[in-house]
Amino acid sequence: MNELKVPAGKLLAFCSACFAKLGLSSQSARLTAQNLIFANLRGVDSHGLIRMKIYADRLRAGGFNPKIRPKVVADQDSSALIDARHGVGQAAASAAMKLAIRKAKKTGMAVVSVKNSNHFGASAFYAMQAVEHGMIGFAATNAGPTMAPTGGREGRLGNNAMAIAVPAGKSPPVVLDMATGAVAWGKIFVAQQEERKIPTTWALDKNGVPTDDPNAAAHQGLIQPFGGYKGYGLSLLIDILTGVLSGGGFSTHVRTLYKQIEAPSQVAHTCAALQIESFLGLKEFQQRMEAIIQLMHSCPSAPGVERIFVPGEIEHETEQRRRAEGIPLNPELRDELRTLGAELRVKPRF
Amino acid sequence: MNELKVPAGKLLAFCSACFAKLGLSSQSARLTAQNLIFANLRGVDSHGLIRMKIYADRLRAGGFNPKIRPKVVADQDSSALIDARHGVGQAAASAAMKLAIRKAKKTGMAVVSVKNSNHFGASAFYAMQAVEHGMIGFAATNAGPTMAPTGGREGRLGNNAMAIAVPAGKSPPVVLDMATGAVAWGKIFVAQQEERKIPTTWALDKNGVPTDDPNAAAHQGLIQPFGGYKGYGLSLLIDILTGVLSGGGFSTHVRTLYKQIEAPSQVAHTCAALQIESFLGLKEFQQRMEAIIQLMHSCPSAPGVERIFVPGEIEHETEQRRRAEGIPLNPELRDELRTLGAELRVKPRF
Repeated sequence: MNELKVPAGKLLAFCSACFAKLGLSSQSARLTAQNLIFANLRGVDSHGLIRMKIYADRLRAGGFNPKIRPKVVADQDSSALIDARHGVGQAAASAAMKLAIRKAKKTGMAVVSVKNSNHFGASAFYAMQAVEHGMIGFAATNAGPTMAPTGGREGRLGNNAMAIAVPAGKSPPVVLDMATGAVAWGKIFVAQQEERKIPTTWALDKNGVPTDDPNAAAHQGLIQPFGGYKGYGLSLLIDILTGVLSGGGFSTHVRTLYKQIEAPSQVAHTCAALQIESFLGLKEFQQRMEAIIQLMHSCPSAPGVERIFVPGEIEHETEQRRRAEGIPLNPELRDELRTLGAELRVKPRF
Repeated sequence: MNELKVPAGKLLAFCSACFAKLGLSSQSARLTAQNLIFANLRGVDSHGLIRMKIYADRLRAGGFNPKIRPKVVADQDSSALIDARHGVGQAAASAAMKLAIRKAKKTGMAVVSVKNSNHFGASAFYAMQAVEHGMIGFAATNAGPTMAPTGGREGRLGNNAMAIAVPAGKSPPVVLDMATGAVAWGKIFVAQQEERKIPTTWALDKNGVPTDDPNAAAHQGLIQPFGGYKGYGLSLLIDILTGVLSGGGFSTHVRTLYKQIEAPSQVAHTCAALQIESFLGLKEFQQRMEAIIQLMHSCPSAPGVERIFVPGEIEHETEQRRRAEGIPLNPELRDELRTLGAELRVKPRF
């Protein structure tokens, strides 16, 4: 493969410079770039630099307001509400997480919700900020409607996502970062190209009927929630805890990232932090985390299974490798970034 | 069917009296009875009176300590830790929820964890206590190990469960109450009796391989987490947020309800409450809830689907019906309760 591997630092510098040229403050530019490169480092390429172009397009079209700072509009000892004022999601959600951490240090636990925001990238980026403070972090976001409630056949819920991050001892943190959809569209497109059937739990055809035909799914079909009605329930609850609670957009009021790029997308987030030392000593907690991780790793495995993982472990190992070897860029993405750099007069040093 | 329908009030009086005879305080006896009958009323019979006998057996054998009161052992403005001291789970978790609600009233959000507890029945019972206070409630519990981590073939995680309850306007509260297992064992036993195959997402055989044979599942097999590795991740995270965080039992340290009934089961719970008015007015929130419920209900449906539900709606309708018609008891359960009543000298008035 004609694949280039670029050091994360070089990509971070390039992205930050691009976002600054697009009008973001240096801090917001850096946060947004860090969030995208965090995803690439951890192997979650769907939330990485591949989003750079649409972010730039939205910043230029007005769907993301570059000049605005998030504002705290309600405040209690253990809760707050932030109005992102249609600025970048990364800046608003980072501010929310920071505030939740500061409050949880004093009270044991805090939750901060964000309205009028935009796509915030990988949820784990925010949840993991709490881990550095000896806390358990939680971050959730809603998204434009692409899934139906169980029994339905029209998009009424986003592929809403959440992450929980927990510090361990010598092991990397346990990080569950999951969307509520059964599968990413990308996998259905691959099945189309390869003329393979798909599991009937992945998608609905345009009539709302589960299908094993990737073409039927792609032709006005929908992704199913993961795990049937439980995934629907989780997706709805995330929408309630973000969009409904914050006073922001929810369900059909949220816009997807790629449509109406000149309009605010009305995304909402909720972040929370829980101070471990309010319950037991951090050292003891870490030992207990090592014990439960060990209990998973040591579980006798099914035939053909080499290792049992805990959530976040594969991503951590990918990050170690990509920090050493660089982030792989395929030719299309490399060209896209270089074109963007040329437009913004930012030199890509890769 | 030779099925008896008994008014909930009669069953509540009978159960409370039995638990009091078994040594519980009148308050704990009533809470425990209410929790079981709550489940029956809502159609969740697996968590209802069917558990009465094992609770009685555990109280007599010492696995549940009847005489103990839960004790707050750590306390911050928005967090607390309760030691249930091996008393009944219902008393400990109700105390935790009450404390979380009291704290959240002052600070916006609070979380209370419980260690050294026991089986606490239906999670929604606790989460819904917050709804009466204009709050969003959350309750989670771990359980004895009956599921393997993805790729494993030995029980290392319980069919851990959680509930989130949210007040609506004129509609009943939205209540998501879900275990992390793909299916209840009962459904596999039914498939065995009817000699039907089961979906390969339900269970593993004794080697850890997904099976469509209910006999292979029942013969030393395991239930799978729902939705594959995401369900595994959720189950592990619930164990971390309850057992690991509280300093209580987790993974293989937790005992299942029906084994070693003379020993404490080391179950742990975590309850949380979030005050809606810290974010926006309760009336406005309720209107927004009605709007999102309406958006689900009005979604065009797939062929053959008559109605689209939100979580908790079916249970609410069952409760309305059973409050009017009584709770159905099959002959086996009726006999079991009558035998227990005779042993404890409590007259079953049904």
